[in-house]
Amino acid sequence: MAGPTDLTGENILKPVKVGICGLGTVGGGTFNVLTKNAKEIARRAGREIIIEQVTLRRPNPAVDTTGVKTTADVFEVVNNPDIDIIVELIGGYTIAKDVVMSAIENGKHVVTANKALIAVYGEEIFAAAEAKGVSVTYEAAVAGGIPIIKAIREGLAANRINWLAGIINGTGNFILTEMRDKGRDFADVLAEAQALGYAEADPTFDVEGIDAAHKLTILSSIAYGIPLQFQHCYTEGISKVAPEDVEYAEELGYRIKHLGISRRTDRGIDLRVHPTMIPEHRPIAKVDGVLNAVTVNGDAVGDTLYVGAGAGAGPTASAVVADIIDLARTMDAPASASVNHLAFDTIDDVRVLPIEQVETAYYLRIQVQDRTGVLASIATILSQREINIEALIQKEGPEDDALAQIIILTHRVEEQKMDEAIAAIETLDSTHGKVTRIRVEHLD
Amino acid sequence: MAGPTDLTGENILKPVKVGICGLGTVGGGTFNVLTKNAKEIARRAGREIIIEQVTLRRPNPAVDTTGVKTTADVFEVVNNPDIDIIVELIGGYTIAKDVVMSAIENGKHVVTANKALIAVYGEEIFAAAEAKGVSVTYEAAVAGGIPIIKAIREGLAANRINWLAGIINGTGNFILTEMRDKGRDFADVLAEAQALGYAEADPTFDVEGIDAAHKLTILSSIAYGIPLQFQHCYTEGISKVAPEDVEYAEELGYRIKHLGISRRTDRGIDLRVHPTMIPEHRPIAKVDGVLNAVTVNGDAVGDTLYVGAGAGAGPTASAVVADIIDLARTMDAPASASVNHLAFDTIDDVRVLPIEQVETAYYLRIQVQDRTGVLASIATILSQREINIEALIQKEGPEDDALAQIIILTHRVEEQKMDEAIAAIETLDSTHGKVTRIRVEHLD
Repeated sequence: MAGPTDLTGENILKPVKVGICGLGTVGGGTFNVLTKNAKEIARRAGREIIIEQVTLRRPNPAVDTTGVKTTADVFEVVNNPDIDIIVELIGGYTIAKDVVMSAIENGKHVVTANKALIAVYGEEIFAAAEAKGVSVTYEAAVAGGIPIIKAIREGLAANRINWLAGIINGTGNFILTEMRDKGRDFADVLAEAQALGYAEADPTFDVEGIDAAHKLTILSSIAYGIPLQFQHCYTEGISKVAPEDVEYAEELGYRIKHLGISRRTDRGIDLRVHPTMIPEHRPIAKVDGVLNAVTVNGDAVGDTLYVGAGAGAGPTASAVVADIIDLARTMDAPASASVNHLAFDTIDDVRVLPIEQVETAYYLRIQVQDRTGVLASIATILSQREINIEALIQKEGPEDDALAQIIILTHRVEEQKMDEAIAAIETLDSTHGKVTRIRVEHLD
Repeated sequence: MAGPTDLTGENILKPVKVGICGLGTVGGGTFNVLTKNAKEIARRAGREIIIEQVTLRRPNPAVDTTGVKTTADVFEVVNNPDIDIIVELIGGYTIAKDVVMSAIENGKHVVTANKALIAVYGEEIFAAAEAKGVSVTYEAAVAGGIPIIKAIREGLAANRINWLAGIINGTGNFILTEMRDKGRDFADVLAEAQALGYAEADPTFDVEGIDAAHKLTILSSIAYGIPLQFQHCYTEGISKVAPEDVEYAEELGYRIKHLGISRRTDRGIDLRVHPTMIPEHRPIAKVDGVLNAVTVNGDAVGDTLYVGAGAGAGPTASAVVADIIDLARTMDAPASASVNHLAFDTIDDVRVLPIEQVETAYYLRIQVQDRTGVLASIATILSQREINIEALIQKEGPEDDALAQIIILTHRVEEQKMDEAIAAIETLDSTHGKVTRIRVEHLD
């Protein structure tokens, strides 16, 4: 490298100048971490990291911007020629995308926490970045402060990854934990989560699994070297998980978690977010409350598990600033010194399996008239479709004496066969209402 | 970078050539991972990684070295001019150190899994490497396949690390898990662990905490930017943990784990390995069997937890090869593109606190004659030294009717005061034998 050297002949790298776009919760957290830990960060990065300019539309009482240039116009930051790294913490698809693409066009590196943007427009963004010789990093986009992107792209790089499963939405995990601990129902806990500020006024993104699907899309791409395929991610929320299913899961030695699951199979990649029953002895089953956790299985390493806060100012800032420090080290080096945007230098166009072709085990809860022959009819329907029963329990119905509940755990089977079986069971005279189905994964 | 380019003008990096010294369990695992996953590894590293030569003293039936140069002489590998990276998997201090120092002298990068070597000679080795402009990496030295070195040096680089605590010896965790699950005693489980191959014929390194102390020394250095101070690490093994203490811990809502603990305090750094009672609801308390786990607390991120296999051919090879891949990316870039050997570019000479000055809470088990006034005498001794009691339980003695056991949980206090209190309690007429003391950490 050209550049000034000190007396020992070592390079003295000039400070890195950062522009922060969006000074809300995460932007404020990033500002504060960079300021408070400046000295230690410089010792780690090998150079100073300076906040050159920030956007400030509304005052953020958590941040003291004294001495730092502020502007209400993000593009003033993006076009500031003194800035090396643009930190995009605006969120959403529209302005955020313009900011990122313009920053790249201006030859700046980008750090973002925007999972939706990366999951949906990542390939376009990374192609633009590679053409310009800059990096776009996104550790904060998945699982907050847990360095899971780094673990998969670098820490486990020796492995052929077989599968991964993550609790990657803290709101959902909080709700399911409360439902289990206190026997409460979904709507009740959601209202509390909203009051506590854990859940948004519009909770759809969190509880219907869209946020988790964005994150899972990113994780699977860097795990297997496949394109980002958010549009093919199967997504099912937790709003229909009933307290009695939480209770029966427990009785059977399982927990219900809202998991993002991705698995490499001979026929394609599983990519799906849904309520999942997992054995209670798996370490990830014990991760409760707002915590996030990801288990990754690699062919050499076996299972590794990563747990931590998935959201909040501090944890998310921790990931954003880690990306800035990595850039501070590599930005003056040849591009080959940086990790590939999606971990691999070539992307395999492996298809995502439609949910009908996914193989998993199932928990079924069937409300039936309590009379002889009912069990036999159900068992026949399952066996005709080669669905093997692992366990079967009959329960008295909660309210009506004439109704019983049949709980069935099956072995793994293709979803399509299970769809057919459920349709057939629902047409039986003895079946009352819809069959409840929760997918079961043993994570082995 | 100069070098050949492809049609698009991108650099085509030439293959990286690796020499493996030591083809035992981990060496064989490394050989097999590099061979089996060669294609995917090249896609991640951006260049091919080739095994150029390996040392082979005894045949390893798990490895097929056909087509690879072998030699019984490690220095033939170290001096092979075609080799870029020397992988040291010999272990121990003597030949391993010569291999590493000679490789550096020859201008080669080094990857090692040798915790003892790094904990004891790390600074000498890193200084030599920096003088030569090469890197020595050691992800595999701590917690096997868990990318914990990377997590602390890079993933959490934004944070001021406050403390870390790890189950970093799988043998010890297996023994404690069996003791708890089955009420067995230490010697009995150790014998089984040896039969299963989990414990060495000489188990001292594992069960007396020396192996864990090597690893903890490395973790604390990269967490706080302090020198490697293995010689100041307090080390206490698990051989004296009695089944009744395991049982009482459980009753009190705790688990006993053999933890390596390091904490930054105003007066210095805690650096200690000992049996530790931790609240059962902490995620790390639930990590059982041969698994390893490390919790790291940073000022921005809060607690993060990393769990996985701490030993074995595959997991250790996973870490070794991850280091090789990182080197493949950065070895042709300026040194500033690589992470500092001990995470920081300057090292703060912070002292390690002698164990007498460490503050922690305690569990005490005191065997006493069951008569009036005994409790009062013990309480007086504690209160005179300002040791506050959090809980106190009296138990019937296990065998002798005239003896009872008093179990006390205290608040945090300096170890020196507790030493004095225990000495005073042991001089009471009513006290029978030695007082059992286990340190308690709430990890908050």
